[in-house]
Amino acid sequence: MIDLNADLGEGFGRWTLTDDEALLSVVTSANVACGFHAGDPSMMRRVCDLAAERGVRIGAQVSYRDLAGFGRRAMDVPPDELAAEVAYQIGALRVFAEAAGTAVTYVKPHGALYNRTVHDEEQARAVVAGVTLAGGSLPVLGLPGSRLLAAAADSGLAPAREAFADRAYTAQGTLVSRREPHAVVTDPDTVVRRAVRFAVEGGVEAIDGTHIAVTAQSLCVHGDTPGAARIAARVRAALEEAGVTVGAFA
Amino acid sequence: MIDLNADLGEGFGRWTLTDDEALLSVVTSANVACGFHAGDPSMMRRVCDLAAERGVRIGAQVSYRDLAGFGRRAMDVPPDELAAEVAYQIGALRVFAEAAGTAVTYVKPHGALYNRTVHDEEQARAVVAGVTLAGGSLPVLGLPGSRLLAAAADSGLAPAREAFADRAYTAQGTLVSRREPHAVVTDPDTVVRRAVRFAVEGGVEAIDGTHIAVTAQSLCVHGDTPGAARIAARVRAALEEAGVTVGAFA
Amino acid sequence: MIDLNADLGEGFGRWTLTDDEALLSVVTSANVACGFHAGDPSMMRRVCDLAAERGVRIGAQVSYRDLAGFGRRAMDVPPDELAAEVAYQIGALRVFAEAAGTAVTYVKPHGALYNRTVHDEEQARAVVAGVTLAGGSLPVLGLPGSRLLAAAADSGLAPAREAFADRAYTAQGTLVSRREPHAVVTDPDTVVRRAVRFAVEGGVEAIDGTHIAVTAQSLCVHGDTPGAARIAARVRAALEEAGVTVGAFA
Amino acid sequence: MIDLNADLGEGFGRWTLTDDEALLSVVTSANVACGFHAGDPSMMRRVCDLAAERGVRIGAQVSYRDLAGFGRRAMDVPPDELAAEVAYQIGALRVFAEAAGTAVTYVKPHGALYNRTVHDEEQARAVVAGVTLAGGSLPVLGLPGSRLLAAAADSGLAPAREAFADRAYTAQGTLVSRREPHAVVTDPDTVVRRAVRFAVEGGVEAIDGTHIAVTAQSLCVHGDTPGAARIAARVRAALEEAGVTVGAFA
Repeated sequence: MIDLNADLGEGFGRWTLTDDEALLSVVTSANVACGFHAGDPSMMRRVCDLAAERGVRIGAQVSYRDLAGFGRRAMDVPPDELAAEVAYQIGALRVFAEAAGTAVTYVKPHGALYNRTVHDEEQARAVVAGVTLAGGSLPVLGLPGSRLLAAAADSGLAPAREAFADRAYTAQGTLVSRREPHAVVTDPDTVVRRAVRFAVEGGVEAIDGTHIAVTAQSLCVHGDTPGAARIAARVRAALEEAGVTVGAFA
Repeated sequence: MIDLNADLGEGFGRWTLTDDEALLSVVTSANVACGFHAGDPSMMRRVCDLAAERGVRIGAQVSYRDLAGFGRRAMDVPPDELAAEVAYQIGALRVFAEAAGTAVTYVKPHGALYNRTVHDEEQARAVVAGVTLAGGSLPVLGLPGSRLLAAAADSGLAPAREAFADRAYTAQGTLVSRREPHAVVTDPDTVVRRAVRFAVEGGVEAIDGTHIAVTAQSLCVHGDTPGAARIAARVRAALEEAGVTVGAFA
Repeated sequence: MIDLNADLGEGFGRWTLTDDEALLSVVTSANVACGFHAGDPSMMRRVCDLAAERGVRIGAQVSYRDLAGFGRRAMDVPPDELAAEVAYQIGALRVFAEAAGTAVTYVKPHGALYNRTVHDEEQARAVVAGVTLAGGSLPVLGLPGSRLLAAAADSGLAPAREAFADRAYTAQGTLVSRREPHAVVTDPDTVVRRAVRFAVEGGVEAIDGTHIAVTAQSLCVHGDTPGAARIAARVRAALEEAGVTVGAFA
Repeated sequence: MIDLNADLGEGFGRWTLTDDEALLSVVTSANVACGFHAGDPSMMRRVCDLAAERGVRIGAQVSYRDLAGFGRRAMDVPPDELAAEVAYQIGALRVFAEAAGTAVTYVKPHGALYNRTVHDEEQARAVVAGVTLAGGSLPVLGLPGSRLLAAAADSGLAPAREAFADRAYTAQGTLVSRREPHAVVTDPDTVVRRAVRFAVEGGVEAIDGTHIAVTAQSLCVHGDTPGAARIAARVRAALEEAGVTVGAFA
């Protein structure tokens, strides 16, 4: 059994990015943008309504406050400020999830905040402090081995591990940096095959050809490229064909 | 018995405006800015913590999205967008109120949104729709006779009426426009005397010298001018001396 | 001879809207978004570079400060503030136009500011004051009969009149409101035919079937819908076929 | 002869921070905030008008785009974006300087961008690229020994060195980090004495008691603390009394 998560609602006002309707037919967990890197209130409401309708679980995709940079520029936000910003975003999303008859059930940092909290202890703890501040002991979805998941566990929040079928892994089990060649797997067939391998074998072929173990409760599928929803649908179909139950992580 | 309310947390980042600490020693209801015209997450958190500590009730001071104009510029926001924006702000504030061990217990529009929903039926209904969307059937604090309070009542939300000790009233019981001379009462003694009269006699002397009835559950004291906290403290002392109980509205 | 203008650079950060490259192969005047409703500095730079390369003239598409609403929500901005905001945008764009070896040569308000300054004398004068403040006596592009063009003329700025091939006109020569049915002409053949008629006959068939005179120096082609660039290209081809020279207005 | 510079116009909308009028009676160079960390168009206009009136030179105080953090949070902005953002700010300010009959004559980065470009080669070069993009070969004001001033010199822009009378220096001539004790000199008499020593002796007493040489063309006086303008006025008076001419750097 494995969860499929995707980033949704990543437009702003007049602008759209993700094909939310198509992706909500595929994924079991929706990382909804909360207004700091993308996502305006109307969009958040719409995505929550659609997710609730289709039984897709809602998570808060929290970010640095950076609309101009889409949350992709690391920022030295003091820990207290960052915690408050994370809590603010969770609270804002909660209104729309609850109005739709459901709830915010996990938190996943976006972009630069995601990348930074892999290694940065202080910011990882700040994100966890923000989740705690927001109440409800929400699980935190992130990279296995990250400071973020360690900090979550330390604070009594359930860490949820995710894997990427379209990203290359080093032999040590970390992601190959996007600056390296072949960091991203673009061939849809390969993406689908790797997704199944993650779910069935609990691992993936690393960039040096060795098999490495990666235990993940969720697979992240990207939604911001043309054809993304179609690949995600193929991943889901292949998983089900391989006998894997696709369902929200515990 | 009467409530005293003031706008709090109306700074942003490096900037401060209101003397929150001083005002929280005086008022019984704190209209906390939610980030759209003022108020960043750290400030919202701090004000909620202080308010909870002192037993001051927390309300969401919702606004148009307009930091540059401090929410004082009327905007033609489509009703659905406005409702979602109002709900977003309430949800964001709720996190900090609840983390402080209390709750958001009412909603008051700010600035241009306050003024516009006195007369504008569509926007008044949109604000009420936003409050409803946010759940919890929060009372709405506003001007007696406003479309806003009528729309709140229509939707089953308790309307809460407020009066202004430092604003001139017409013989018809409406506020004299700020564009007119003498619209604002600046003499502290007069402000204090009018506050007591609102509470004790349920009315005020209009600009033409007649006495008019104004039934208010709350008095608004301003906090964004130098000396504001001191005048507010004098208002409270005078009310108590006159035998009026100062306490949060029902 | 007629000018073709289109709104360009209307994305922001990660988001894109207009097919700038395609449109720059068609139009003779580029209304470049300046950061208030859309358009970040990198995008402004890129559009200016491309426009200069292709000999397309650059205009400042100035707007209310409203990224969330894409500048489509009328705002009661005090005239002095509005003038300063308009000047700020022109100045910011000028840097990129001049770096590209060309210049900002006209100003066109966007969205709600465009619509409002058709009728609102105060805001029309404020926009013109902003253009004047920015120096260089830039022409103002707008709707024939608008307060904006009258105010521009009063202040010694050249008014430039534009027409819309894809909008229905009343018998009085004003645009049919978008809230009315048939306000927008969607059939590409009709759009093309009307464009030619504007250029050749100086008029258009109004919604009641009568022919009305509309003297325009520029035709606005829209760029924010799928297929927009293709329709714009057809308009240009048809104009040239009809013997009309397509070139920037004087 | 020495220049006195201060940060001005660092409010936003309803919020003010610096006592611009008082400081403009003291300094010879005004670092005007350009809207990215502070400074709205109306404020920029007002400060430029006042500066022009008093013969104070205008510089663009460019920043990361971060109103919420007042530009004090380092951001990993890609170099091309940063260059465009710097140019945008210079262009916007130029409009108001020129409308006031004067010009933008230098550039100084603010806050985190200032601190980062002391050591970060890539961002230093990006700021310089932005200044170059904006045209006019503006001098760059910064810390002696910084990457920023080196990059400016490399690109043919005049580097202008500044010193801080209220900051402690190490024996190596760098600023003591604000995280260290005694990093900031708070005693006004000491600040005044150090200012004179910078101007007359070309140096300062380092934190270990040794005298170090610091050749500066400009002294930065802070304007965002209560009493700041008064201290700045005392610095100027003491300089003049010591026979130093206070005037804009070449």
